[in-house]
Amino acid sequence: MADTREVVGVSGPPIRETAHARGYAPLVEVRRGEVVESVHFGAIAVVDAQGTRVAAAGDPAQPVVLRSTAKPAQVLPLIDSGGAERFRFSDAEIAVMTGSHGGEPFHVDAVRSILERIGLDERALQCGAHAPYHRASARALRQSGQEPTALHNNCSGKHAGMLALAVHLGAPIDRYLDSRHPVQERIRARIESLAGLASGAAPLVIDGCSAPTFAMPLASLALLYARLAVPAGPAAGSDPSVRRAVAAMRGHPEMVAGTDRLCTALMRTGRSGLIAKIGAEGMYGLAWERGGTGYGLALKISDGEGQRSRFSVALEALRQLEVLSAEEVPSLRAQYVEEVRNHRGLVVGSVRTAFRLA
Amino acid sequence: MADTREVVGVSGPPIRETAHARGYAPLVEVRRGEVVESVHFGAIAVVDAQGTRVAAAGDPAQPVVLRSTAKPAQVLPLIDSGGAERFRFSDAEIAVMTGSHGGEPFHVDAVRSILERIGLDERALQCGAHAPYHRASARALRQSGQEPTALHNNCSGKHAGMLALAVHLGAPIDRYLDSRHPVQERIRARIESLAGLASGAAPLVIDGCSAPTFAMPLASLALLYARLAVPAGPAAGSDPSVRRAVAAMRGHPEMVAGTDRLCTALMRTGRSGLIAKIGAEGMYGLAWERGGTGYGLALKISDGEGQRSRFSVALEALRQLEVLSAEEVPSLRAQYVEEVRNHRGLVVGSVRTAFRLA
Repeated sequence: MADTREVVGVSGPPIRETAHARGYAPLVEVRRGEVVESVHFGAIAVVDAQGTRVAAAGDPAQPVVLRSTAKPAQVLPLIDSGGAERFRFSDAEIAVMTGSHGGEPFHVDAVRSILERIGLDERALQCGAHAPYHRASARALRQSGQEPTALHNNCSGKHAGMLALAVHLGAPIDRYLDSRHPVQERIRARIESLAGLASGAAPLVIDGCSAPTFAMPLASLALLYARLAVPAGPAAGSDPSVRRAVAAMRGHPEMVAGTDRLCTALMRTGRSGLIAKIGAEGMYGLAWERGGTGYGLALKISDGEGQRSRFSVALEALRQLEVLSAEEVPSLRAQYVEEVRNHRGLVVGSVRTAFRLA
Repeated sequence: MADTREVVGVSGPPIRETAHARGYAPLVEVRRGEVVESVHFGAIAVVDAQGTRVAAAGDPAQPVVLRSTAKPAQVLPLIDSGGAERFRFSDAEIAVMTGSHGGEPFHVDAVRSILERIGLDERALQCGAHAPYHRASARALRQSGQEPTALHNNCSGKHAGMLALAVHLGAPIDRYLDSRHPVQERIRARIESLAGLASGAAPLVIDGCSAPTFAMPLASLALLYARLAVPAGPAAGSDPSVRRAVAAMRGHPEMVAGTDRLCTALMRTGRSGLIAKIGAEGMYGLAWERGGTGYGLALKISDGEGQRSRFSVALEALRQLEVLSAEEVPSLRAQYVEEVRNHRGLVVGSVRTAFRLA
């Protein structure tokens, strides 16, 4: 379509079609028998820690919203400020702050422990409540007659970390989600810097957990991840906060996601120090290290729904980049990518990636 | 991408990228704040009963799999053959045969009644079982300690209709889903004819309910729907079977979908004799009549997941085509298109259509 084509939004005034949609390329074909029934579009950017383009599918300049792929960086100001040291947070606690956890008992215990350490409890969390992602934990909670609390929210670790920074800074704890709160200002500055963006260049939007999150080009997020893999700051100096956060994630991958989750499984492979973090609406951030160089991959599935496309694409990209071996991918696929089955359980189709990183 | 670009499928040999993906255009933007976070691609074809193109978005030649949008046509051979008359099926029973019903008690009763009339019971249904789509009915079933049966499968009406035709023809009832069974052969011939396709031109694939379904260009499905709206056959003769099936759907829209379902609500508007039928993986078939001419619309959301995109696009297309009034659309949107909310229930974004039928 032409750049200036007028399009219509039924819930708002006419808008102009932008480049938003054209950055996406077909990445996944869903077949029924031999017929391609559905297609998932998306974009992938792979860069090294110097910001050099390594590979892409679709347009690496595609703007995306980070959602929970921001979490590994959102924890950094707490470490930068000395707050993590002051409150003696363990690596497991730092890891759950970077996580989209399943609300399993060990996640809930870790978040509760963080809050106790800073003299607060779950009433201070402003993330809202939802049932645990981890099905057995959700079922156990239901069967015990308890309602899910903010502790079970997948973002409760991040929120507890934000509250810890607020307490450490002596800043108000009741409005820690305000974009002009010192906690959020420090987070934004840190994220924009790691992503190689000018201060204030990443528009703020509100995440599902009510915290600010950020929009930026996919390649900028990939750069942020590359700098997680090998912790040298923008000025090529050492970045001990990144080192601490990433060591925590690598040491406690179950805290970053949970039992039966792909992020956890990817980090457990130990391949090239892999870091893996999903985000809502089809986002994935990945980082690894090879020969002393950090690499970051950011991917977005345009439709933002479901897992079949995102997980297929992440695994196939890691295979093409030789971070995972051709032997490792099929077993991870078998566990995390659902087959196309009918109501009698018969396999009647397949989910196939359809891209070559270039 | 170039036509011959080699692409990779991890679960199969390398495949060639085809035109499959390029027929899709961006149809829906999902915004978070003012930022476009996600984009749904799809295609729409609108034709009249003579096969003349009326409007489109994306490529109307995009191949799609019909899934349950085939149902209003799959019932026709039962009526053609005299079977519907022989077994004295009511309009409500014909309607549930065309439906993807919610498994509500009145749906289950209708399907049971069809089976009783032909001397069979639910054990003859080969659709598999799943919990009722209708949440209150699913909950009631669970609370009564009962397991869902094949009667609750959204396709059980269609299967009961197929069994009725098998009984009427004296054909085997145990392999009624075999693509070479007389029931399936008659259905395929009828669908290809209504869609203006040569015999055997629509590839068969297996639907979620284990029955054969069909692949064809989107515009061919739109033609099939246009011919439902004004029942003149390919040779412009009258088509009494279509007349009967469509009258049944219009008279009993609750049987075609169910309580709180968009298909039912659209048919209840009574606008231009609107017929509405969803199908899995992002499909929608719509038909209406204006000034003695039948119009059909077929739409596919490429990603095949979720409802926010499909329902938005269907409503906006009907608004642009002036089948629904600008006043009717907002209340249907409010009821059937979920807003973008966070875990505290605050609206943090919007689902906006971004196409102009041309």
